[in-house]
Formats: sequence, structure tokens, C-alpha cells
Amino acid sequence: MTMAYPLAEIAKADNDKDKFLAVYPMLRDEMLEHMKENEMPDAAIEWCKTMMDYTVPGGKLNRGVTVVAVHRTLTKANEDRDLTDLEVAKAAVLGWAIEFLQAFFLVADDVMDASKTRRGQPCWYKLPHVKNIAINDSFLLESYVFTMIKKHFGKEEFYLQLLELFLQVIQQTEFGQLLDLTSQDEDAEEIDLTKFTLERYQKIVKYKTAFYTFYLPVAIGMITSRVTSDDAYDLAKDICCQMGEYFQIQDDYLDCYGDPSVIGKVGTDIQDNKCSWLVVQALDRVSDEQRKILEDNYGQWDDEKVKKVKELYAELDIEKIFKDYEEQSYKNIQEALDKVTLMPRDVFELLLKKIYKRSK
Amino acid sequence: MTMAYPLAEIAKADNDKDKFLAVYPMLRDEMLEHMKENEMPDAAIEWCKTMMDYTVPGGKLNRGVTVVAVHRTLTKANEDRDLTDLEVAKAAVLGWAIEFLQAFFLVADDVMDASKTRRGQPCWYKLPHVKNIAINDSFLLESYVFTMIKKHFGKEEFYLQLLELFLQVIQQTEFGQLLDLTSQDEDAEEIDLTKFTLERYQKIVKYKTAFYTFYLPVAIGMITSRVTSDDAYDLAKDICCQMGEYFQIQDDYLDCYGDPSVIGKVGTDIQDNKCSWLVVQALDRVSDEQRKILEDNYGQWDDEKVKKVKELYAELDIEKIFKDYEEQSYKNIQEALDKVTLMPRDVFELLLKKIYKRSK
Repeated sequence: MTMAYPLAEIAKADNDKDKFLAVYPMLRDEMLEHMKENEMPDAAIEWCKTMMDYTVPGGKLNRGVTVVAVHRTLTKANEDRDLTDLEVAKAAVLGWAIEFLQAFFLVADDVMDASKTRRGQPCWYKLPHVKNIAINDSFLLESYVFTMIKKHFGKEEFYLQLLELFLQVIQQTEFGQLLDLTSQDEDAEEIDLTKFTLERYQKIVKYKTAFYTFYLPVAIGMITSRVTSDDAYDLAKDICCQMGEYFQIQDDYLDCYGDPSVIGKVGTDIQDNKCSWLVVQALDRVSDEQRKILEDNYGQWDDEKVKKVKELYAELDIEKIFKDYEEQSYKNIQEALDKVTLMPRDVFELLLKKIYKRSK
Repeated sequence: MTMAYPLAEIAKADNDKDKFLAVYPMLRDEMLEHMKENEMPDAAIEWCKTMMDYTVPGGKLNRGVTVVAVHRTLTKANEDRDLTDLEVAKAAVLGWAIEFLQAFFLVADDVMDASKTRRGQPCWYKLPHVKNIAINDSFLLESYVFTMIKKHFGKEEFYLQLLELFLQVIQQTEFGQLLDLTSQDEDAEEIDLTKFTLERYQKIVKYKTAFYTFYLPVAIGMITSRVTSDDAYDLAKDICCQMGEYFQIQDDYLDCYGDPSVIGKVGTDIQDNKCSWLVVQALDRVSDEQRKILEDNYGQWDDEKVKKVKELYAELDIEKIFKDYEEQSYKNIQEALDKVTLMPRDVFELLLKKIYKRSK
């Protein structure tokens, strides 16, 4: 099988995001070609082309681009050279595998959460001709991950290791989503805020976000760079989970205080009765009366009630608590990085640079 | 890792279904233990225990039991001996992997199709505390498939072959579901019956049902019995797809003409605007006026309209057409079986015996 990597476009692009984007059409078309080989009719192939274009490449692509950056950092450290265009292309395939995985999660999460918009456009399932078909579309996005890994890495000695990494991270993310979904009961007469503890919050974040957002791109780069030490993977996991917690707490902060036109969605964590870092912090500080305000107003689709929750957050100065946490967390991660010896510290620095004090 | 196979229970059980059932509690508890190792709290583990018990073991278990039967047939043919209890247990694990896979598909399909009952009880997503969480639960059921394969077969030389077989069959089933879901447009002003062709029908059946129901149990038995000839797998695939078509056509027949108390659900293919074999056959035989009756009454949740469609089926004697097809299909499969030389024909005979002229 000869791969048609877009090497000329990669050479021409002058930053990693553009190099990364240059690989997408090839991968998408390979998936469509694979469907043709499986006797799928033109209409089904056209459906999936539209579906992929709508759900996969429109995000920030940080996770995918990170795979290329990690691979470059490790190659520089190990062999003191830059990546070839072919190496960039192959790393980009694995980066896109993460982006397809993310699309799988997001398409399905939007259905489960009854979200309205995603990345500044209606959620895929909200399109009138799509609706519940989006659930099967999310499955297809997941299945493409394995199709592209097999097609591009099926002959490598690390192929099974890659497969198992993806399968494990998928399951861990689903464990996190289970924890998240079962920490709320939308139909209960009264909401139960006792489940919103910091311990539970940290577990949700670790499983639902940190593994696939931070550990997965780093671990992929390590696998393709032939890192074999278990200790190196364990330390990477530990640091990535710390970063993931920081990242998700930012996300929760932005859901409430971010600019919808910048973050590309209108936050509804309060209405959705989400176990957000903000409500966990508030619960940790409320008086009995203030707790009553949360109980009466959190988790309801009523603008007046949402306003009351936000007023309580202001009273408790949750914004200040976030800023303090942000400073402290950054320091903690820097200290953890001082312990990194088995891998170039730059791998983690580049992740941290991308997320610290982000506004979207 | 020592496996706690329930060998005494397997020895005691006097038929394959009971031997097969004896393995379920071990597997379920292993999945729960695996979640505990992944820091999941007791409530999440309890959720998944209830979820698995509700969605996995309550079916006919034909697919799972078939894995044991295929393995026994091949062992008899190759080594002229019966299976040991340990071999039964290990084959049953792979049989349960198919049953978990089937539960994944059914839990999600019921959400997509807005079904009400399954196996004589409310669909999992219909339970008031479950609803859309069922979508993530279906993902978890899929993920358990790979957890059990790794735990029980991760050290076997055929481990990767098993993994890839499951991944491929999952994707093919999703392709079939895509074809099925996009052959109807629930919101269109007028239904479009032009998509309901025999060619499309056959493709839906092959991908959505035949691969995981017939080819998967046979191929698993072949893999664990170390069959290596590609031709043997190709021939098995061909025969299994023929049987799958016959099986699905029965299913469509039973949806309309079966006894709901026997098949465990009230058929709604007509209301759901399904590309059923019955409507495909009807469309092949209608006059212009009769076609108008289908256009006006098919695919609507209106008992009067459903009745009109059923009256038209009676007029066209669709029941007779099914009976004729059933006879002919059985003969055709017997002829295909005459060509089997690389494998014992018994493998396929046992499948055929299970499905021919079934009433549920």
C-alpha cells in the first residue's frame, strides 16, 4: 500500500497547525475510500464526508498538533535533528486519530447533554436531517480511529501498543463521562449537591478529560519515539493529569465567565446541574442560607435562577478564588516538571504554554 | 494473573446454554473489579452492575453459545475429542464478548429508534433514571469487550487477530446501521419509498446483522482453533452472509406476523418507516394504486394507517412470498454447504439448525 501523504503541502506550510491541517483531506478521503471498499453506496459516503467535515476539523486542534510537537521535541532530544516532512505527516495521522476520537466524544456528549451549539455552530445532532443518527455517526468516528491506525501503522512493531493505548484511553474517558453523568439527577424533585465534592470533581476531570487531552498525545509521541521505560510513561501520566485538572478548571471558569463569541458556545453548566469546579468551590464556602440559594436555583433552565447562582458566585468572589488557584497550580506543575529526568522537560513545557491563562 | 473460571459449574451444567450462562457472573465481576482498579466509586460500579445485568444476559444468547459450539465442532474434527471444561470456559468468554457487543448495539439502537421494549421489558434508556446516560452505557459495553479479550487472551499469539476481527465487525455493523438509518427520513413531508430496493436491503442486512451474528462467532472459533487459510475465512464469510440474510428476513417477517409475547417486543417496522423485506417485496409487486396506499400509510404512528399497510400485505399475500423464500433460501444454503471442504460442514449445519423456521 503506497500512502499519498501531502508532503509538498506540509513543506510549504510554515507552522505546525497548517502542516497538520494539510493531512486532514487525505485521511478523510481514505476513510471514504475504505467505505467504498465495504460496498457503501454514494449517498452513505457523501453523508460521512459531510459528517466528518462538520464534526472533526473545526476545533482548536491542540491535541492533534501536540502529537507532532511532542514527536519533534523527542526527535530533537534523541537525535539532534528536525522532523522530515514524512515524519510530520505520520505524526499528524496520529494527531488526527485523537481529533477523530474527540469528535466521537463531543458528538455523543452533545446528544447526552442536549447541548445546542458547539464551536460556534449548531451541534451535529441538532441538524434536522441528522438528529439521533448522530449517535451512530459518533460510533463511526470512533471506528475510523482504528482504521487509520491500521492503515498507517499496521506494519510497525509498536502497532499493538498504539491500539491498546487508544482502547484504554477511550474506556477511561467513558468512565469519566459515567461519573459526570451520574453526579446529577435531572428529574429529582430536589437537586442533590452532596455529590459535588472536590474528590469526585478531580476524578471526573482526570478520567473524562486529562487522559485523552494530555496523556494521549504525549504517550503517542513516546511510543512512536520508541520510549520503553514504564517509569517514563507513569511520570508523564502524573504530570499530564495535573495539567488536565488545571485545564478543566479553566474550562469550567470560562463556561461561566468566558466570552461566548470567543469560546464558541454559550455556557450552560449551571442550568445543566454540572459538577463544575465553580459550584464545588462555592459549596465549600457557603453559609447555610447561601447553600439554600444554590439548592433552590442550581440546575434549572430559568434565567432568573441562573442569575441568582451567578450573584452568589460574585458574593463568594469565585473569580478571585480561580485566579489564586491558577497561580498556585502553575507553580505546582513547574515543581513537578523539575523532577522530570527520563524525558525532555520541553515536551511538557510546550503543553503548559498552550493552556496557561487561555481565554478559549 | 490467575483466572477464576467457574469450572465446577460448567462441568455440572448439562447443556451449552447453561455452561455458557455459568461464565457470565465471573466476567461481569471482572469488569467491575477493573473499574475499581480505575478508581471508580461504589455508586458508579453499582450502576454498571445493574446496567450489565439489565442489558447483556437476557437475550437468546445464540451468538455467544455458537462460539462454544463452533469451537467444539472444530476440536472434534481436528483432534477427535470433546472440549475440556477450561476450553468451554475460554470459548464462553469470547461468546460473551459477542453478547456484550450485541448489548452495545441494542442499547444504542433502541435510543436511535425510540423503541419502547426489548426482550419483554422496557428498553434500558426508557428507565427514568437512565435516559440519555444509556448512550455512554452503550460505549462502556463496547469497551468491556476489549477489556475481557485482553484479560483472557492478551498473551495468546492470536490476540491481535481477535482484536482486529472485533474492530472490523464493529465497524461493519455501524456501516449497516448507517445504511439503515439513512434509508428513511422521518421528517420528510412525504416518505420516499424509492430507497427501499432489494439491493439496498441486502446490503443493510449483510453489514448490520450478518457479520456480527453469523460470521463473528464462526470466525472466532476458527481463530481460536488456529485455522489460518484465508480461503477458509472467505468461504465462511460468504456462507454466513447468506444465512444472515435469511435470518434477518425472518426477523422482518416476525416483526409483522410474529407473536409479541413470543418474540418479546411489539413490532413497529411499519411505523418506523423501516426498509423491511416485507415492504421491499410489496413494492416489487404493487399496482400504481397500491403503491399510493403504501406512500400514504407507511412510516406513520397511526394504528389505522398501520392496519391499511397490513391489509395491503395480505392482498399481495406477502406471507406466502415469505414461505416460498424460506424454502428456496434453505435449499440455496444447503447447496453452498456442499462446496465446503476446508472446514467441517457441521459448523454451518449447527447454525442453520438454530434459525430455520424459528418463531422467535
